[in-house]
Amino acid sequence: MNKPYLITRSLTPENQETPIEFITDDIVKNSLFYRRNHFPYPTLHSSFYWLPINGHVKSQKVFSFQEILTLPPKTIKVVLECAGNKREFFEPKVYGEQWGKGAISQGIWKGVSLRELLQQTGWLESAKEVVFEGYDFGKRTDNNQIHYFSRSLPLEKALHPDTIIAYEYNQQPIPFKHGYPLRLIVPEWYGMASVKWLKKITVINHEFKGPFQDTDYVFLLNNGKSPVTTININSTIQKPLDRQILNTGVHQITGIAWTGKGYITKVEVSMDGGTSWDSAKLMESPNKYAWVKWNYNWEAGSQGNYNILSRATDSKGHVQPQNALWNTKGYGYNAFDVIQVKVE
Amino acid sequence: MNKPYLITRSLTPENQETPIEFITDDIVKNSLFYRRNHFPYPTLHSSFYWLPINGHVKSQKVFSFQEILTLPPKTIKVVLECAGNKREFFEPKVYGEQWGKGAISQGIWKGVSLRELLQQTGWLESAKEVVFEGYDFGKRTDNNQIHYFSRSLPLEKALHPDTIIAYEYNQQPIPFKHGYPLRLIVPEWYGMASVKWLKKITVINHEFKGPFQDTDYVFLLNNGKSPVTTININSTIQKPLDRQILNTGVHQITGIAWTGKGYITKVEVSMDGGTSWDSAKLMESPNKYAWVKWNYNWEAGSQGNYNILSRATDSKGHVQPQNALWNTKGYGYNAFDVIQVKVE
Repeated sequence: MNKPYLITRSLTPENQETPIEFITDDIVKNSLFYRRNHFPYPTLHSSFYWLPINGHVKSQKVFSFQEILTLPPKTIKVVLECAGNKREFFEPKVYGEQWGKGAISQGIWKGVSLRELLQQTGWLESAKEVVFEGYDFGKRTDNNQIHYFSRSLPLEKALHPDTIIAYEYNQQPIPFKHGYPLRLIVPEWYGMASVKWLKKITVINHEFKGPFQDTDYVFLLNNGKSPVTTININSTIQKPLDRQILNTGVHQITGIAWTGKGYITKVEVSMDGGTSWDSAKLMESPNKYAWVKWNYNWEAGSQGNYNILSRATDSKGHVQPQNALWNTKGYGYNAFDVIQVKVE
Repeated sequence: MNKPYLITRSLTPENQETPIEFITDDIVKNSLFYRRNHFPYPTLHSSFYWLPINGHVKSQKVFSFQEILTLPPKTIKVVLECAGNKREFFEPKVYGEQWGKGAISQGIWKGVSLRELLQQTGWLESAKEVVFEGYDFGKRTDNNQIHYFSRSLPLEKALHPDTIIAYEYNQQPIPFKHGYPLRLIVPEWYGMASVKWLKKITVINHEFKGPFQDTDYVFLLNNGKSPVTTININSTIQKPLDRQILNTGVHQITGIAWTGKGYITKVEVSMDGGTSWDSAKLMESPNKYAWVKWNYNWEAGSQGNYNILSRATDSKGHVQPQNALWNTKGYGYNAFDVIQVKVE
């Protein structure tokens, strides 16, 4: 069997994309999980096995890795998607990593609900957000200052039972490149929220304004800015490949669809540029947090060039739009997926 | 060190591209050499070690692999470039594998001059072309017929002493995916000429019209067609990356340049869209058949968006054009390389 590889976008720091068209498994194995880094990899140190929670808590505490392993586990299948996924499709083009369709992966994360830990420390009435800092750090191009990667969640999201401090991926220790030994996993949100190599957790009583929250990962529009949070509804065609040449006959169109809040209820395919839509078959019962695979049989009866569009709908009534919301930094692209094929 | 990988374009047949931006060595190692196939890989068989030459020859002969190894060897550093390299940059877009800038690799091939073999068989006065057939075969989408991959060379090119029957790549047996045990290597021509898994060689007295010569690998234009042969002059910027965000200061722009006939004499960089050009430094004395590495120091004094262009010139007076010749099948793209960066 011929094997696909990660698609290299940059090496310092390492940013490599999942060859999503060729992922047929329900979970993405470690070697094909997309890698998205702002900085060089940190160096493992014994401190990585101790996780302090402090700030606006009733009693601060340092959790050992051992102790975390003894708490009631939670296992969830989650899509992680980089907020910049599909950035290369924005027109006009924007700067930053030119992700294609593969800055997305899914798999099974096991850990402990952050809520369990916060219940042990308690929190003050004034608590508003929870800040997560990773061990990865480096200089930003915009201010030439050293920063650790850190992000916050609103208290409510931090307390959601499915927001976990993970220690396993696909029944293995989390691979070092993906945040070993402890990584925050935030279902429903874009991947920047799922801080790797957790260093410390701080409960604060105000709005967090770090550069990865207030400069990056914001939708910068003409009329202001808003933070990037929940994953947009989206779908990707895996087969056929864009610009593939096919012969006449029946071809199976396959793909995946996913959303932030809720679950996918419908995927449709259009062969006439979006005038009419026909339902694709969902290959499994939809699962919140995970993508659903879909397929559609298409009879290519005559020669010619064809556009194939896919459009997903979710249980909250979101429908994938014809055009994505253009924003300066290129986040959240989720227009209909479109490929073109030639039948000869 | 973070490692780049091949970029998967398709798996059946296998088409994967070299991560050319990240190749700093003068030779491309086997694992990163681009893979371009029309068909599934053939199955190795003992017949692969016997190479018949027949047709319009004075005495036909079957050369054993052993015998080929005893003939005087020839070792050459050669660029192999797929005729479809950079296809994705054609506007309007064309069908077929959407190669970026990495359907190109170079390394050291060792073998025997085909001329040595043809001198043993001799050829008739009527001999016009030499046909090379590989062991790879399969069904074409355009006619649903089974074909072996085969291509011809004019007699003169076949007799050029640097047209070799290779049995080593980078001092190792040729990797199976690249044509083991015997592969034709045709310097100066696009890669389709360098037939893998050589099965037989036939001298003919007419023009060869196989589908990989007369349907594929032709420049299809409004006013007719012409065969794809010699590599066009070209250059590629490796660093910075397209759409990269940089800080102010001095940045090194690096890349490669190559051509079919002759050798590269000059590479220039333009920061003003092609109005003025400044010479880059060639990092080695130019070598026919091989690419030359170049670099250019650029002081990014102020913030803003910049276009960076590169343009190569060769010893035959060819200059890389502003626009590539658009053709239906998307071969030979060689417009100035252009990337855009943002300085902040």
